[in-house]
Amino acid sequence: VFVFSRPVRFEEVDAARIVFFARYFNICHDAMEAFFGPLPGGYAGLIVGRKIGFPAVRAECDFKSSLRYGDVVRAEVTVPHVGKTSVTFAYRLVRESDGVEVGIAKQTCVVCELETMKKTPIPDDVRALLVAHAT
Amino acid sequence: VFVFSRPVRFEEVDAARIVFFARYFNICHDAMEAFFGPLPGGYAGLIVGRKIGFPAVRAECDFKSSLRYGDVVRAEVTVPHVGKTSVTFAYRLVRESDGVEVGIAKQTCVVCELETMKKTPIPDDVRALLVAHAT
Amino acid sequence: VFVFSRPVRFEEVDAARIVFFARYFNICHDAMEAFFGPLPGGYAGLIVGRKIGFPAVRAECDFKSSLRYGDVVRAEVTVPHVGKTSVTFAYRLVRESDGVEVGIAKQTCVVCELETMKKTPIPDDVRALLVAHAT
Amino acid sequence: VFVFSRPVRFEEVDAARIVFFARYFNICHDAMEAFFGPLPGGYAGLIVGRKIGFPAVRAECDFKSSLRYGDVVRAEVTVPHVGKTSVTFAYRLVRESDGVEVGIAKQTCVVCELETMKKTPIPDDVRALLVAHAT
Repeated sequence: VFVFSRPVRFEEVDAARIVFFARYFNICHDAMEAFFGPLPGGYAGLIVGRKIGFPAVRAECDFKSSLRYGDVVRAEVTVPHVGKTSVTFAYRLVRESDGVEVGIAKQTCVVCELETMKKTPIPDDVRALLVAHAT
Repeated sequence: VFVFSRPVRFEEVDAARIVFFARYFNICHDAMEAFFGPLPGGYAGLIVGRKIGFPAVRAECDFKSSLRYGDVVRAEVTVPHVGKTSVTFAYRLVRESDGVEVGIAKQTCVVCELETMKKTPIPDDVRALLVAHAT
Repeated sequence: VFVFSRPVRFEEVDAARIVFFARYFNICHDAMEAFFGPLPGGYAGLIVGRKIGFPAVRAECDFKSSLRYGDVVRAEVTVPHVGKTSVTFAYRLVRESDGVEVGIAKQTCVVCELETMKKTPIPDDVRALLVAHAT
Repeated sequence: VFVFSRPVRFEEVDAARIVFFARYFNICHDAMEAFFGPLPGGYAGLIVGRKIGFPAVRAECDFKSSLRYGDVVRAEVTVPHVGKTSVTFAYRLVRESDGVEVGIAKQTCVVCELETMKKTPIPDDVRALLVAHAT
């Protein structure tokens, strides 16, 4: 399990005073970016340097509890599936202050060459990192 | 079917030059806000005036094709389920220029009093609007 | 004066329940995008088609009153300065419901070729549109 | 000088492939939130707990260079003015990799009770923190 924490940001709270639901996916993406930290240049190295991207083909989230400004959210990231050109990430989102589970999300991405947006096999070093967190 | 269209916004495109996946849910939410237009004060009238909200309990999207800056996206909104205190919206997202389906999303919300975040039965006028788009 | 109106978006309101100050600049940018509507393909045609961009070199805003969810904001756009490679836009932001001025903003952009990020003279059709709103 | 650093976020880059200009103000706000870290509960403690806010009355930025995905930005925060009910923050934004100054920003806020949005004198502990970074 890869663990990533960050505070709720001031501008993530909506007119109903809770974190806007679509922002849960931003939190997951932040965790995914951090997940790739061990690679040279991190996620940005993949995108900008190697021009490899991970467009989502599916994303889903069950929202269990709301997040508010002042909360710190922890994402526990695992990798339930690694295919030839696709990968599924699972995220358990927890409010740090009381350990309450606030969301369970899943995201399937394909690995693409960004210039052409064509699928490409997962590079070996990326695969090794993914497999290390497989469940 | 309720239909809503808007251009992709300049800042919705990410470092991979396509609309960031989480933004598809923002597009759906924009469509949902517009859906409530016929009620007095629209969606804002519900949230700010009547202090009734629709926090998501589940959201999912299958991403079929990417959106880029310059595209106009059309959301076709239907209501596959209306319960006592919950409602499910379905969204078919289409790129206007070529009619390509870019995403299929679904979102289940509970109706809440925003002061307490307690579930509340769907008000009659809201229900009538939802039922009119039931599938 | 070019006039552009849009509602405050649900997710633009922050934890203090008012539109986050940085979002005023997003509103101005939305108005600027609409300003370029008369050109073929609009602002997107410039960016994506002709690969010409308008990176800001300076932006400023005086915030006069707050905006809340439910408000519609009107931007009145003028062009106080058109240079060889730069342009200044002025924005008067007004809350539609009561006509209160909520912000006065100004933004100076340079015209660039996006591939190289080098300054380039303002194209003739763009200049004609800008000059038509000069003050 | 209070120093705060963070990477450019994936979704902060716009269709022109550089950080959207309005996001520079988000970076400044992130730095301001961090600035208030030494107070109990940090900035969130002020907003949510004590219901004191800092709505901007003026913000300005000179953009010196662009930021891209993969960059880390450092904000150097100082406090050029502390009044009875208002405060001005100054931000020097620097790209970490090469030390290039990418923006110079300034933001003046009034201190308000969020319930009423009325100005209120800066609380003593807040003032002490501000004065410690006065220039």
